[in-house]
Amino acid sequence: MQVLRVNTEKGNITSHPLDAEWEHLGGRGLASRLVAREVPPTAHPLGRHNKVVIAPGLLTGSAVPCSGRLSVGGKSPLTGTIKESNVGGTAGQRLARLGYRAVVFAGSPEPGHWHLLYISPEGARLEPAGDLVGLGNYDLVAALREWYGRQVSVISIGPAGERMLPLASVAVTNTEGQPSRHAGRGGMGAVLGSKGIKAVVLDKPSPGQVAPRDPERFREALRGFVSALRTNPTTAKVLPTYGTTALVDIVNEAGALPTRNYSTGRFEGASRINGDTFLRLVRERGGVAGHPCHPGCIIRCSNVYNDAAGRYLTSGLEYETIGMLGSNCGVDDLDAIAAMDRLCDDLGLDTMEVGAALAVAMEAGVLPFGDSRGMRELIEEMVQGTYLGKILGQGAAITGRVLGVRRVPVVKGQSMAAYDPRALKGAGVTYATSPMGADHTNGNGLGGKVDPLGAGGQREYARFFGLAHALFDTLGLCWFTRAPFLEDRRLIAELLSGFTGREWTTGDLEAVSARVIEVERGFNRRAGFDRAHDRLPEFFGEERLHPHETVFDVPEEELDAVYGGA
Amino acid sequence: MQVLRVNTEKGNITSHPLDAEWEHLGGRGLASRLVAREVPPTAHPLGRHNKVVIAPGLLTGSAVPCSGRLSVGGKSPLTGTIKESNVGGTAGQRLARLGYRAVVFAGSPEPGHWHLLYISPEGARLEPAGDLVGLGNYDLVAALREWYGRQVSVISIGPAGERMLPLASVAVTNTEGQPSRHAGRGGMGAVLGSKGIKAVVLDKPSPGQVAPRDPERFREALRGFVSALRTNPTTAKVLPTYGTTALVDIVNEAGALPTRNYSTGRFEGASRINGDTFLRLVRERGGVAGHPCHPGCIIRCSNVYNDAAGRYLTSGLEYETIGMLGSNCGVDDLDAIAAMDRLCDDLGLDTMEVGAALAVAMEAGVLPFGDSRGMRELIEEMVQGTYLGKILGQGAAITGRVLGVRRVPVVKGQSMAAYDPRALKGAGVTYATSPMGADHTNGNGLGGKVDPLGAGGQREYARFFGLAHALFDTLGLCWFTRAPFLEDRRLIAELLSGFTGREWTTGDLEAVSARVIEVERGFNRRAGFDRAHDRLPEFFGEERLHPHETVFDVPEEELDAVYGGA
Repeated sequence: MQVLRVNTEKGNITSHPLDAEWEHLGGRGLASRLVAREVPPTAHPLGRHNKVVIAPGLLTGSAVPCSGRLSVGGKSPLTGTIKESNVGGTAGQRLARLGYRAVVFAGSPEPGHWHLLYISPEGARLEPAGDLVGLGNYDLVAALREWYGRQVSVISIGPAGERMLPLASVAVTNTEGQPSRHAGRGGMGAVLGSKGIKAVVLDKPSPGQVAPRDPERFREALRGFVSALRTNPTTAKVLPTYGTTALVDIVNEAGALPTRNYSTGRFEGASRINGDTFLRLVRERGGVAGHPCHPGCIIRCSNVYNDAAGRYLTSGLEYETIGMLGSNCGVDDLDAIAAMDRLCDDLGLDTMEVGAALAVAMEAGVLPFGDSRGMRELIEEMVQGTYLGKILGQGAAITGRVLGVRRVPVVKGQSMAAYDPRALKGAGVTYATSPMGADHTNGNGLGGKVDPLGAGGQREYARFFGLAHALFDTLGLCWFTRAPFLEDRRLIAELLSGFTGREWTTGDLEAVSARVIEVERGFNRRAGFDRAHDRLPEFFGEERLHPHETVFDVPEEELDAVYGGA
Repeated sequence: MQVLRVNTEKGNITSHPLDAEWEHLGGRGLASRLVAREVPPTAHPLGRHNKVVIAPGLLTGSAVPCSGRLSVGGKSPLTGTIKESNVGGTAGQRLARLGYRAVVFAGSPEPGHWHLLYISPEGARLEPAGDLVGLGNYDLVAALREWYGRQVSVISIGPAGERMLPLASVAVTNTEGQPSRHAGRGGMGAVLGSKGIKAVVLDKPSPGQVAPRDPERFREALRGFVSALRTNPTTAKVLPTYGTTALVDIVNEAGALPTRNYSTGRFEGASRINGDTFLRLVRERGGVAGHPCHPGCIIRCSNVYNDAAGRYLTSGLEYETIGMLGSNCGVDDLDAIAAMDRLCDDLGLDTMEVGAALAVAMEAGVLPFGDSRGMRELIEEMVQGTYLGKILGQGAAITGRVLGVRRVPVVKGQSMAAYDPRALKGAGVTYATSPMGADHTNGNGLGGKVDPLGAGGQREYARFFGLAHALFDTLGLCWFTRAPFLEDRRLIAELLSGFTGREWTTGDLEAVSARVIEVERGFNRRAGFDRAHDRLPEFFGEERLHPHETVFDVPEEELDAVYGGA
């Protein structure tokens, strides 16, 4: 497999074989290693010394179902830490099947010099993209599909990325060619924007999957993996039906649904934005529940959400978006949330950070909670660049500071996900100790054996899921395939043994995970992050959360022990 | 001596004797120790766990000339580090002669509950100050002098402090009762605002100075100290004549005068804002050059600056203000600068951080360089609270981030002083390694024996001045009295021996300094700062500065060695 290197300052492209020592790495594990080795930890995230690494997982492009994940890594302009933002869609498999384990963007072109990177089996080239500047992701992809053909897969940024807003996402097209899958967190769209890259167009690779080294063993392991996914109730029933929207009721019931800027854990309007409402509206309007974000997905948690007239509105409407733009902003109208999801996807914005920032603005009195029309206007302002839009466009932490709000749900400058850490304390430990700011994708606190309201056991819980997530993100496996892994880790070890042709033990899996976290935390240490940054904001420890009337009280020593301190 | 403790949340006041181990500490040394002991390093700077310590120096209130300095300490909302902001004026001597070595404000009252603290020889009391909210420092002090009598000395915040802007200053009245001396740096006015304290009114103490323990030895040492100040050309001639405005020509000549957001080191309009122009205008208009900021100052570097009609405009117009609001914003009109100085003093804003933030806004295209009228309007907007004003009111770092400017002259979130570190590299080392962000008051790079354009020797230089400054700020000595100390440190040791009645060696002085820095850096370490934060912004190392065409190239290892690394 090759590493493709694009320097947009010099305008050149090179490629070289992946380092032998990293042969069995992909996705997050590879992206984080490349960033840690090549980016000076104190570099300005939007300057010439930062890089963007786009890396499909190790298994991505193979026959393993739900293995199409793609990692986008770099130093985050939102947090200042190392960042890997993970996304589905069709680009990961394409890139892998085109023969690339990573694409690395470097340099810093003159402002206003925009390019797109076109990759086909014949190779890669930079093309001028000045004409495409200003286009939203939907219009952009439509134009690129017209130009290059409907078969292309596209990675792109919207106007938010062009403006280098630290909540800008990187969009990836789904199976219908819609740019609705987003590497949302940490502002990687801004870093891609700083490299002057508006889009990466991936043409059809030569036929065939990425082949395993030991086909027989691989096939056998695959059978066990698929069978586990098809029998587990979450992957076989809940996710294909409701997608992640099922979480609205679950988290609300747990008293952890962020509501009106994390001021209570139960939302009185939850039933109007929950999984049942979602499913009813999807069915009434000819939408799709149980939609795959990439070929070969057998879980199909994604969806197509139509408007009241039955026209396509958005796809991949997720729980985190519903939580952050919905209950957390006091919005109980699923259509309004879906419309904002579409708008954010089009402008290239992280729906979660946007929701957190807007709720902070609501607390500051900029607009009332529940005013979804006002929210839409403010989202537009972020890319129009009014002063208020510029403030909000920096994310929740800066919004809080500039507007004078002290109740701001962030760690390391990144907003939390849609789980209040006072009622799901494991999520709080994850937020605090993730190498990437308050990021739930390093494991949250739901459904485990640990009492979510207690301080005990959360450390081990967060560590377990944090390590598991690092593994899945390295392999390119969707996190929703974790059920078989949690039951029997040998399933994954077997898959890898068949795929790579060398023997993997479950201990090897742990070593991979541990090393990823170590590399990331090492980068962060050199960038100036230590245990003092592994903390939740003060108010979570002091302000009681209804209905459980709990505060976040996991001792600091426990936080420091998750990964052995800084 | 007593420590006065004011909890504005509980509304109570207590006092207790100073800890015996700290008997020979005052000013910065005492403030930093109290903050490091009592404030959790990760506390929100504007929350209930932060404190404000107001502490006169050890010698303040004694017969030592130029010893009236006052320290204002706490955790800074601008930098997140520990902070000591140092100020002249009459309050330091008052406080010491009223018997207090420190006043400590704690707690966090309900929003909108404002008080003033009144201190007289009979004791201290909190009084409601709701009626005074919204007043600028000038009107406030006029009202307080009417109420309490013209004899009072006042420490206060303006509307910027009420709004808790992290560039809000703490004002202190000068010998004429004008609130023109400011503890400007680090936003201590915001922290005082967070405690709901609008003013501290200091009534006349009982007659007499703070007495030395060994009067004879003290008198003798004093004679040597005074004689040195009266014979040194800087303290005897330059400063009494020009004040610090003499620096405009010197720094411009050195090619280090920040011009148009640190884009060149020479300002074509320097002669219109330099010491000679200053002196001519002061003399023509009946102003005063050679004005003391507190009784007993024999250097008298301050001034009274009248407008063209001969009416009082401002006092204490300083080089740093001229550099940051003048050349750095492309303004070559001393009257315009003086008017902005007055406006900042009235609103309670740090002129340096304001100038840095405005220049960044100019680089972003918000207004043209040189537009002093537009600058005045924007300064007003900071306290009016328009969205642009709110952005600027957060200081240069946030302004740069929100407005999308990467050339932002800050370290640890605080703007640099009026010395470009590419042409005065010692200043750069100081900015990088000061425990308080880019703060020149820890030693700058002018007038030493080290080549200011070379990378060599700057480490030792910055360390020497950093330590010396910590000593002077602890004793309450004005930094301008350093000349005798630099020639013979025994002069200060003798003064202290006479004052305290125990033997001081020059080694003791070094130990005091070293311990202050150690305490401050220790706090910062626990607050999450390490060597990665002891760095200048990227562009200073890459963009050549005219006229010397130099970059800041002091190696990182040298920076880390200044105080022995983090």
